[in-house]
Amino acid sequence: MRSVFVAGVGSTAFGRHPDIAIEALAVRAADAAIRESGLDRAEVGALYLGNFVAGPLLGQEVLAGLVADGLGLPQIPCTKVEGACASGGIAFRHAYLAVATGMCDVALAVGAEKMTHADTAAVTSALNCAMDFRSDGVSGLTFPGLFGLAWRLYEERYGATRDQISEVVRKNKGNGLRNPLAQMGADLSRAEIGEARLICDPLRLYDCCPASDGAAAVLLVAADRLADVVPQPVEVIASAQARGSARIAGHPDLCTFEATVAAAQGAYRQAGIDPAEVSFVELHDCFSIAEIIDSEDLGLIPRGQGAAYAAEGRTAVRGDRPINASGGLLAKGHPVGATGLGQIYESVLQLRGTHPNQVKGATIGLTHNLGGTGVACTVNILRATDA
Amino acid sequence: MRSVFVAGVGSTAFGRHPDIAIEALAVRAADAAIRESGLDRAEVGALYLGNFVAGPLLGQEVLAGLVADGLGLPQIPCTKVEGACASGGIAFRHAYLAVATGMCDVALAVGAEKMTHADTAAVTSALNCAMDFRSDGVSGLTFPGLFGLAWRLYEERYGATRDQISEVVRKNKGNGLRNPLAQMGADLSRAEIGEARLICDPLRLYDCCPASDGAAAVLLVAADRLADVVPQPVEVIASAQARGSARIAGHPDLCTFEATVAAAQGAYRQAGIDPAEVSFVELHDCFSIAEIIDSEDLGLIPRGQGAAYAAEGRTAVRGDRPINASGGLLAKGHPVGATGLGQIYESVLQLRGTHPNQVKGATIGLTHNLGGTGVACTVNILRATDA
Repeated sequence: MRSVFVAGVGSTAFGRHPDIAIEALAVRAADAAIRESGLDRAEVGALYLGNFVAGPLLGQEVLAGLVADGLGLPQIPCTKVEGACASGGIAFRHAYLAVATGMCDVALAVGAEKMTHADTAAVTSALNCAMDFRSDGVSGLTFPGLFGLAWRLYEERYGATRDQISEVVRKNKGNGLRNPLAQMGADLSRAEIGEARLICDPLRLYDCCPASDGAAAVLLVAADRLADVVPQPVEVIASAQARGSARIAGHPDLCTFEATVAAAQGAYRQAGIDPAEVSFVELHDCFSIAEIIDSEDLGLIPRGQGAAYAAEGRTAVRGDRPINASGGLLAKGHPVGATGLGQIYESVLQLRGTHPNQVKGATIGLTHNLGGTGVACTVNILRATDA
Repeated sequence: MRSVFVAGVGSTAFGRHPDIAIEALAVRAADAAIRESGLDRAEVGALYLGNFVAGPLLGQEVLAGLVADGLGLPQIPCTKVEGACASGGIAFRHAYLAVATGMCDVALAVGAEKMTHADTAAVTSALNCAMDFRSDGVSGLTFPGLFGLAWRLYEERYGATRDQISEVVRKNKGNGLRNPLAQMGADLSRAEIGEARLICDPLRLYDCCPASDGAAAVLLVAADRLADVVPQPVEVIASAQARGSARIAGHPDLCTFEATVAAAQGAYRQAGIDPAEVSFVELHDCFSIAEIIDSEDLGLIPRGQGAAYAAEGRTAVRGDRPINASGGLLAKGHPVGATGLGQIYESVLQLRGTHPNQVKGATIGLTHNLGGTGVACTVNILRATDA
């Protein structure tokens, strides 16, 4: 496997983009990544596109080819990949593999989603495509329902409180306020969070990420092309993907996702590092409780202490374990297919030292993208290089 | 790149499967492929699943993970890939790459689709997701419309007749009659074909492939695992994927698909062979005229002579250029995500010498899977090995 570097990143703001088609949104992000790199687009040898629900919500598939058309790329292999909410991370991993295995020297990963044009029932129904329809979907369960169950179990087992979990929301919403790409940053009090409109007991409004439109893109290159890259390159030192059960009853424990654990172990092994060496993390906080579970599954925080860490400020930008300095899914937004690549975008800015919520001394960043009821997960680890 | 071999294949019949879920259909085919190989399923290191319209038609995504669950595979990376009707071929290529690049020693490619439960309007609308919705979809054009245009242009340019093109249908329907997996084999006269119900002028009923349910799977292994493989292995000597325009107006000529030409050139180059060395072909005859265009794009038949070759019987099982001995999409059926893997299944049987429509002396087979309006194409070349 060859060394692989990020040569350029691009992203639209996450939020509402009513007047632009999904493929145009993706082209905007990808064009920015290519231009930033300084490389010629004729050199791109493979394109992977992460998207989840453009079929049901927009009647549009073949997005990989459409985006390549819009970018004016050569007749390269263009592939849409899907693993529910992990689709963006899977696209990144496949572009990484294309370069790492020597298939090509330059590969493009793009993620895109449009959701805000659809009504809540249509969005809920589309997101439920991420469940096993026959075993879970027909029960009437939705994703807030699943994470509500996980919250109840977690609080019962570890004694976490609503106020502690609200601190995840306060932190991420506050981080989002300072991220110009974020959809819903806010300065919220514990009371505003804990007394907000009930969505699915015990989850309240701000415990849930919004529906979003957005696109993000990452251009990857082999080491021997680094001399041609304009911005400070960032090295990809691990990219792992694992699966877990697609059924809720297939998980032995709702306070952990085995796909996260397996992908994290694989990524740490590939990178040759311990969790303690990670400077910051962008993880899949689709719900406030998810951030706590994910941070423990990733080995960053001891089991059962995620809520306490949040309450003590240890996961803040200036804490010893910074999580979701971008605002995360809760505040930055969750345009599903774009989310995993948005995490890479944020991490690259951190490792270049140019993030609006810069983590001091950031040298190693980890991204975590989880799909469905834990059916798919990617964990990537990036490292800063000297300019 | 390491040598890669087919260790096992499996397929359901193509046709109507009203009483079985799509993931169960896929598991049935994949389980057969694994069992045939004699390998332990714990050794499978990656799964790629080709599917196109399970989102819109079944409300079910994350099929890669669901199928892995059903098969009892380890916590491996499981990825759905999509490139419209080329999704199955793309899944095969990615499983091939996983082994060829050394990512794993054993990889599984599965394709599945369920369409016959939905009404014609829903199926047409789902298939139109393969077009650029904004430029072509809104015009009211459907795929029969596109291939009707291609037919008119082809007959104007090359002087092909309805009777000549009907011979493609007669051949494929006849081949289907002898393939136990085929959905709609038939013994049809030229008159029955030429006077059948008009679908989209000049296409009549038998010029169009049916909507189908079905699944097919291929297990691939690295050369150093061949000693453990039970059936006669078949080598994959090329796997290429290319893109073309996603828009109809983006094609310089409707009598050719540039994605096919590019993928074919890439595949012949990788295999180090000429088109003349290919013993038989399974190609993407979604419509009768498509078989003629594809056979010319693949360099198998000189430009403008595809219809004459069919009329002269040269593309029959006993001809000098056998095409779609399986019955092709026209007779075997077109469960979209499964089609590309069904073509590999048929080719492996040919190269083992066990096909119900055996091509004599078959040593090299080519499969061709085309997506959308030519937006994505895969071409694979397989070679027989001695037992």
